[in-house]
Amino acid sequence: MEETKEKEFGNLIRGKKVAKEVQDGLKAELEELQTKSPKVTPKPGFGYIIVGERPDSSLYVKMKIKACEEIGIQVKGDNFPVDATEEEVITKVQELNDDPEIHGILVQLPLPDHIDEDKVLSIISKEKDVDGLHPANVADLVMRGKSPRFVACTPFGCLHLIKTVCPDLSGLRAAVIGRSNIVGLPMFSLLQDANATVTLCHSRTKDIESILKECDIVVAAIGKPQFVKGEWLKPGCIVIDVGIHSIEDKTKKSGTRLVGDVDTASAKTVAKYITPVPGGVGPMTIAMLMNNIVKSWKIENFDE
Amino acid sequence: MEETKEKEFGNLIRGKKVAKEVQDGLKAELEELQTKSPKVTPKPGFGYIIVGERPDSSLYVKMKIKACEEIGIQVKGDNFPVDATEEEVITKVQELNDDPEIHGILVQLPLPDHIDEDKVLSIISKEKDVDGLHPANVADLVMRGKSPRFVACTPFGCLHLIKTVCPDLSGLRAAVIGRSNIVGLPMFSLLQDANATVTLCHSRTKDIESILKECDIVVAAIGKPQFVKGEWLKPGCIVIDVGIHSIEDKTKKSGTRLVGDVDTASAKTVAKYITPVPGGVGPMTIAMLMNNIVKSWKIENFDE
Ligand SMILES: NC(=O)c1ccc[n+]([C@@H]2O[C@H](COP(=O)([O-])OP(=O)(O)OC[C@H]3O[C@@H](n4cnc5c(N)ncnc54)[C@H](OP(=O)(O)O)[C@@H]3O)[C@@H](O)[C@H]2O)c1
Ligand SMILES: NC(=O)c1ccc[n+]([C@@H]2O[C@H](COP(=O)([O-])OP(=O)(O)OC[C@H]3O[C@@H](n4cnc5c(N)ncnc54)[C@H](OP(=O)(O)O)[C@@H]3O)[C@@H](O)[C@H]2O)c1
Repeated sequence: MEETKEKEFGNLIRGKKVAKEVQDGLKAELEELQTKSPKVTPKPGFGYIIVGERPDSSLYVKMKIKACEEIGIQVKGDNFPVDATEEEVITKVQELNDDPEIHGILVQLPLPDHIDEDKVLSIISKEKDVDGLHPANVADLVMRGKSPRFVACTPFGCLHLIKTVCPDLSGLRAAVIGRSNIVGLPMFSLLQDANATVTLCHSRTKDIESILKECDIVVAAIGKPQFVKGEWLKPGCIVIDVGIHSIEDKTKKSGTRLVGDVDTASAKTVAKYITPVPGGVGPMTIAMLMNNIVKSWKIENFDE
Repeated sequence: MEETKEKEFGNLIRGKKVAKEVQDGLKAELEELQTKSPKVTPKPGFGYIIVGERPDSSLYVKMKIKACEEIGIQVKGDNFPVDATEEEVITKVQELNDDPEIHGILVQLPLPDHIDEDKVLSIISKEKDVDGLHPANVADLVMRGKSPRFVACTPFGCLHLIKTVCPDLSGLRAAVIGRSNIVGLPMFSLLQDANATVTLCHSRTKDIESILKECDIVVAAIGKPQFVKGEWLKPGCIVIDVGIHSIEDKTKKSGTRLVGDVDTASAKTVAKYITPVPGGVGPMTIAMLMNNIVKSWKIENFDE
């Protein structure tokens, strides 16, 4: 009895494993395509820009570089000091735009306050916007009848994870909690485009519990540790936890542990599937970035 | 008793009256601003393109021209035959883009099948895109922290009507039924941006009644006559009916009458406020177009 319950509830969607499969697939695809004489450039190239030395940003960039190297993507990068000017960053973006060896450009966010993030992002060539944040890609994602060349990596990764356990979302109810440009809003568009009926929740939403109770899919991108409780969920739902926070935990040697925006302990007794933190959404963000870089190279070299 | 009920339910939101107020306001504002020596062009200019002779499209264009004339907006227009080429239409759009007397350009939709609508719309200068359908304006509407120069006229008019009876939407639940690029999707963004919690419904949505039962605001943009029934609604809600259809009615001299996407007879016994058809959303679409043209002229001439 206890065992059946364990199988029906709280099954983990192992993002780390799925991400590895995606990246292994990309590596194999790349090797095969390289034997077919690419038209323009022999291998994909990734160009990144990081400003300052935020430890989280530096870590994310390192992980992206490592993934590129494993797959066979060339990397060119620039680490600017925290007081770099907007002009310097923009000049670098334009250089990467013009560099024929580069197929994907990433400006690691957040940028320091004195640099206009929107301005910098809108200068990245639409054709190399592997982070999917350029207005032209945003508009193509939102509008019916259009498909963006690139979709923002984190929500794209979330959709991929959902589809591993639920390939057809048509007619399902979904809630996205959070409406940021990099997670919540594109997540809404992706789920809606997959024919789910989506409710977008945010800090002004009242009675979020009663909304979640109706939803087959819940994506939490709130930025508040362990915010979503198991009691709020519809039994048997799918929960995708985008949050990532380090909280105090005296039982650990380090004194801290990582948690998400969902209270996993209570949620996994109600949800059928749930992503763990760490090892859930995080690795998928990187896998989808790799996917986008390879896609960009394929479009250039094989008219895909 | 009966009288109180009449006052609490089914109050009409008279779009025709609100639209007239908006247009009268624009006319007065224009006259005042013209005395303050506009920097570049003495009056706003509207350029339209219509292809073919669909009676509904011709009627809409006529109504827009009439409104321009009443307010004091100059009009330049082109009526192309139904077999005009895409190139001819695009050349005309570019001419209007370059015309310093024109502040707003409208391509009346739908275009004949042999012309790529998206292509034509994306060529309209972002600065003259008074219909709000250019990808750059769409992206600015969707993304947090940005404001579009122009918002699509029909949903913009719907929001204006809602605000006449409910100025603060924060925390309210809303449903938008329909996800077209010209109505449903921008309506979703506008309500969400006004801090409502919005559920976007479409043809794959299951059990739409149970969703509507929770919603304080319902916008119906479905294209199906009298689809939404009073029994589905939450008592005291606000209903905005975007639909417009001519149905058979033998009691009328013409043999037909106009109805919307909502079954008004049953809905008005449950909703607190409802827009009539005709005389609800329709006139607001034109008023918001006028608003956008005057706004464009003001930006050019008064740095607003
Ligand atoms: N794993 C990854 O690769 C990855 C990538 C990106 C982000 N993240 C993590 O995901 C989380 C969200 O990131 P983000 O960039 O989207 O955050 P964000 O920009 O701070 O947005 C948070 C959103 O949550 C909403 N919110 C705040 N308090 C709420 C409440 N009490 N109830 C309901 N909604 C509430 C906010 O609403 P308002 O709009 O009304 O303020 C806002 O829309 C963070 O923990 C971040 O570290 C992880
Ligand atoms: N008053 C005005 O100024 C004005 C302006 C524009 C439009 N309109 C009117 O507004 C209505 C909608 O126009 P539109 O251009 O947005 O129409 P549209 O492009 O045909 O879109 C209709 C939307 O309704 C959805 N839908 C269809 N059947 C449904 C069902 N059974 N349940 C739930 N959703 C359903 C469709 O879903 P799918 O996406 O899943 O197919 C689609 O998203 C029409 O009557 C039109 O004449 C009026």
